[in-house]
Parts: sequence; C-alpha cells; structure tokens
Amino acid sequence: MAEERKYSIEQLNKFSVGLLVKMGLTEENAEIVTDSLIFADLRNVSSHGIVRLPTYTERIGTGIMNLQPEMKYIRQRGATALLDAENGLGQLAGHKAMKKAIELAKDFGIGMVAVRNSNHFGTASWFSMMALEDGMIGITMANASPAIAPFGTATPLLGTNPLSIAVPAHDKVPIVLDMAMSTVARGKIRLSALKNEQIPLDWGLDEGGNPTSDPNEALKGSLVPIGGVKGSALSLIVDLICGVMTDTGLTGTVKNITDMSGPSDTGHAFIAINIADFIDYGLFAANVDAVVDIIKNLKPKGGAIYMAGEIEHNITEQKKKDGIPLDAAVVELLNKTAEQYGAAKL
Amino acid sequence: MAEERKYSIEQLNKFSVGLLVKMGLTEENAEIVTDSLIFADLRNVSSHGIVRLPTYTERIGTGIMNLQPEMKYIRQRGATALLDAENGLGQLAGHKAMKKAIELAKDFGIGMVAVRNSNHFGTASWFSMMALEDGMIGITMANASPAIAPFGTATPLLGTNPLSIAVPAHDKVPIVLDMAMSTVARGKIRLSALKNEQIPLDWGLDEGGNPTSDPNEALKGSLVPIGGVKGSALSLIVDLICGVMTDTGLTGTVKNITDMSGPSDTGHAFIAINIADFIDYGLFAANVDAVVDIIKNLKPKGGAIYMAGEIEHNITEQKKKDGIPLDAAVVELLNKTAEQYGAAKL
Repeated sequence: MAEERKYSIEQLNKFSVGLLVKMGLTEENAEIVTDSLIFADLRNVSSHGIVRLPTYTERIGTGIMNLQPEMKYIRQRGATALLDAENGLGQLAGHKAMKKAIELAKDFGIGMVAVRNSNHFGTASWFSMMALEDGMIGITMANASPAIAPFGTATPLLGTNPLSIAVPAHDKVPIVLDMAMSTVARGKIRLSALKNEQIPLDWGLDEGGNPTSDPNEALKGSLVPIGGVKGSALSLIVDLICGVMTDTGLTGTVKNITDMSGPSDTGHAFIAINIADFIDYGLFAANVDAVVDIIKNLKPKGGAIYMAGEIEHNITEQKKKDGIPLDAAVVELLNKTAEQYGAAKL
Repeated sequence: MAEERKYSIEQLNKFSVGLLVKMGLTEENAEIVTDSLIFADLRNVSSHGIVRLPTYTERIGTGIMNLQPEMKYIRQRGATALLDAENGLGQLAGHKAMKKAIELAKDFGIGMVAVRNSNHFGTASWFSMMALEDGMIGITMANASPAIAPFGTATPLLGTNPLSIAVPAHDKVPIVLDMAMSTVARGKIRLSALKNEQIPLDWGLDEGGNPTSDPNEALKGSLVPIGGVKGSALSLIVDLICGVMTDTGLTGTVKNITDMSGPSDTGHAFIAINIADFIDYGLFAANVDAVVDIIKNLKPKGGAIYMAGEIEHNITEQKKKDGIPLDAAVVELLNKTAEQYGAAKL
C-alpha cells in the first residue's frame, strides 16, 4: 500500500491558492479554482482534485491557457446566454456561467448558459450543486478529449463527456448524479496509472479494442461506454451541444489536459431549473425526502442502500473531520511544482 | 417464424383513426395518436406501435383514462409551463406540451414544459423530433411503471423512464437518441412475450433478481439498468422531474399500461433549445453534417457505421415503400378490438 498523509482543508487551500496566485491568478480566482479541487478530494473524486494542480500550472506555464481572460457573454437572449471563456480556466468560466444560469432561471423559470473556448473544469457536480441552495435543479455537461469509440468503430473520438444533475431535498442529502459516459472516468484510470495500480477489465480497451488491466494501455486505447450504443450516442450529443453548438470545435478536437500542444478547446453547458415554477418548493423537497425514505426502506441486496451522491456526501463529512489523505507520490509532485514556481510547499 | 402481412400507412391510419373515433376521440385527436403509433411501427419500435391500440382502447373503455380532458396550463412563467393532462392520452398531452416548449424557445431561447396527470405517451422521439423543423434540439423524458431496482436493492421501483434527444443536421439524417434506462425497453420484452419468444439473458432479472430468458418472468421481475448505478440514478432523476416535480405522484406509483385498476399517473417533461441563440444555425447544421462524415470515415469494426436514429430513419423510408409488416397474432388482436367497438377491421 502506498504511503499517505492527511491534510486539513485549510492546509490544502493555503497551498493551492498560494501556488495559483504565484502563477498570476487573482486571489479571488485562485480561491474559486481551489474550492473546486478540494471539493473533488473531499468527495473521493481524487482524480479531479489537488493532484491536477501540476497539470494546470504546466498549462499556464507553457502559455497555452490564458491567465487573464476577459470572459464575456457574446450572445444573450431571453433565458439563454453564450459565454466566451477566452481559453481561461474551466472552473472560472463554469462558475460564472452556472451563476448566470441560476439568475436566468430566477427570471424565466429555466436558464441555459453555454461556454465556448474553455478548458478542463474539474468536477461537473461542483457546478450542478450550485443550483441547490436556490431551490433549483442544476445540470452540467462538458465535452472532453477523445476516449470513447463511436458505436461500430474501434477509434476513440468521443469524450467521456460528463453529465451531472443535482436535485435538492429537504432534510435528506441532495440527489447528485455525476457520471461519465464511460463505465469509469478517464481520471480514475489516470490515477491508477500514477499509483501503478492495475484496473478492472471492464474499464478500458487497448488500442486494438481489447480489454486490458494496464491503465497505461487503456489511456492509449478507449473507454467502455455505458449501455453500449446508448452511452456512445449520449456522449456524441453532449459534444454536439458543448462543442459544435458553441462553435468551439468539431467532435474529436478537444485536447487532453496533458496535451500541451495548444488550447484544449473545451465547451460546457449549464442549465438551472427553478422548481417553484412547477410546484410549491416545500412540497417538492418534502416529497424528495419521502422518495428517499421509500427507497431506503426497500430490502437491501447485500450492504446498505445509498442514494446518488450520498456516499460522496458522507465521505466529505468524514474528511472534514479527519483530514484529506494524499498519496506520498502526489505530495512529492505537488511540492516539486510549488518549488518550481516559488510557492510555499505543502 | 410467425406469419406476417404488410399494410400501407394509409390502411393502418384508417384503421386506427376509425377505432379511436368510435371510442369517442375527436378526428383531430385520433389523427395525433395514430401518427405517434405509426411513427413507432415505421421505426421498428413495434412495441410502441399499433400493437398498443387494444390496451389504449381497454383503458378508455374501462373509464380509467379520460377521453374528454380539458388540458390546461396550471402554471406558466417565463420560459416554463406546467400542463395538466387531466388523465388524457399521453400523446395528446405531449404533443401540446412539446409545441408549447418550442414556442417558448422561440421567445426565450429555451423552453420547458412539464406535464402532470398524464398517461403512456408512446415513443419519446416522436416528441423530441418535433423540435427539428424549427432548428431546435428537442428533449423528452417521462416516468414509467416500476421496472428497475434502485441500486443496492432487488425491488423494481424505478421506471425505464425514457429519455430522447433529437439534434438537427443539414443534409444528413438528424441525430436522434431514444433510450430507456434499462438495457432494453420493457415494451420489447412485452412484444417477445406476445410472440412467445425467448429473450437474451442481459435484458431482465426474475423476481429473485436472477437473469432469465423467459420474457414473462422478466416482466414480473426487473430490468437491468445501463451502467449499473448510473442508469439507476438517471432513472430516479427523470422520475423526480416528471413525477415529483409535477406533483403527479411519488416514485414507484406509476401504473403499468396494462394495469386497469386506475389512472396511470404518468408525468412528462419537454425541453426545446433554440440553436440560433448560441450559433448561426446554418453553421451548426453544416458542422453536424461534418461530424457525421468524420465518424462515418472511421474504420468500421465489423459492419457499417450508423449514427443514432439512422437505422430507424432508413427502416422508415423502406417501410414507406414496402408496407408495414404486422404479425398475424397482432392483427387478430387488433381486429378483435375493432369488432368489440364496432369499428372497421384491418
């Protein structure tokens, strides 16, 4: 087992904000990005957590990601808007866009904001959950670099293209779906590669389209889509909305986060639905609680019954108390990056 | 092999409209419902086609479905509306609601209409495709009777809860996803049962949660969700939007179309997205065509490469020429129903 050390939120926050500010981000923007990364670590989506910092800093350092974008709405009508991220950090673009979608939903019952010319935005649920405190359903989607083969081919062209939907409850933990169109997220395989761990055979296919337990082979090959043709089609549609409809790029042109040859050309879409425009909000939240009770009272098959997002919620609460464990190899990488940019070490 | 006979669209249309009018529907409403059924038969989704007529007429005949609903918008603000179907036919409610969503999207860039107190609405893509001719992306979802077990249980509580998304192209066939949250739609198993055919082992689970090749056992048990926990969570969320948010009923209360003990308490949601509010429409359509070309030019793995909805489109064109084949057993059932209600036989 790899060596681990636990860090508090404060420690990780100070480290990440310090590093990003050294890179040239404003304090406010560094806080937003850091919040997204720590959110991922707290929810055990470590692949999208603080481990990503060296890659982000490398993208900024090589000048292929814009540190000082002037993100502007280039189209806006009714309940919709299109934000140009100007090749800035995906977290900053998405944070701004989701806030806008929520404002539009306050005015029109539903709001949709698409984002063009953006970058990797971290965890999709971090945005969809922003809608919860306003009594809204939040929907987030993004395209990503080629990872899944269109049905009928063996060539990875489609992204894992995450889809997250967050639905508020009253006393219960909100229902939060955050899924890739593959059986697992690419980042999970990337973390296995970093840790030199083998992966289950239904995670990825090698370049020849054959199942593999080697994460590095899977990263070179393609990922298995959920439901076969269904996951493949859903991935394409997310790309048509996020990539083609934002005029950011054609399907297959998004660059992997580790590809430093140019801007990543990512697109996102955010939708907020104001529940009170369909039903009394209190009744809705109470009924979601009732549904959770109905499901929790079913006969469990094996262990306990968890709702979507509940395990992540529980882990977050636990890590807030106990600290966030980081692999020694990850910490070494983070400190090397900090040293490189003259920032304080972890 | 079962005996088949081919019918023209005109023959089926005359039969179906005649039967529905005898049941008390207006000519106009009978035409709308019939169009949805024949659409399904043309696309080889025969389980949602003309074969459903005896069940619809039985629901109407027993008085548990309202023949003369006064479907009204009980909430309406900005880009959203809530339609009360007053326990009328799902096709009629959905047709009205999707048209409204399209009108809202013309005014606000996006429109969302939810429907409460409705019934089985046929094929989800019939509605989502309505948005195509206005240069919009159409999204349709509905809840359905218990068929899928929430993750961690063996009890069917969640519906197959169809999701359809239609995206327009220029010269190419539009991209049309129409999926259940199960590996196959329940109706497909129902048709196998009607035809006394066995089903593949990854379609359904028996009452004990074990794989079965007997469609009748699977209809008593549960369906396998796509992507395991992902399909199960997506199904729950569709239900929270269509069932709970429309205040139609709590998850698990939708009645199966063959359950004649009372109203089915189904809900739907329709979203239309006006593409021209995000990008020049001509550029979008041309770029979707380009993406289709990119995918079609990949190396095929096995046979030809088809886009989502393309096989259904091709079959439709073929059946329009050659006629729509119906199983002799289905025709017998249809004619028995026609006889019962004094309508012309097929």
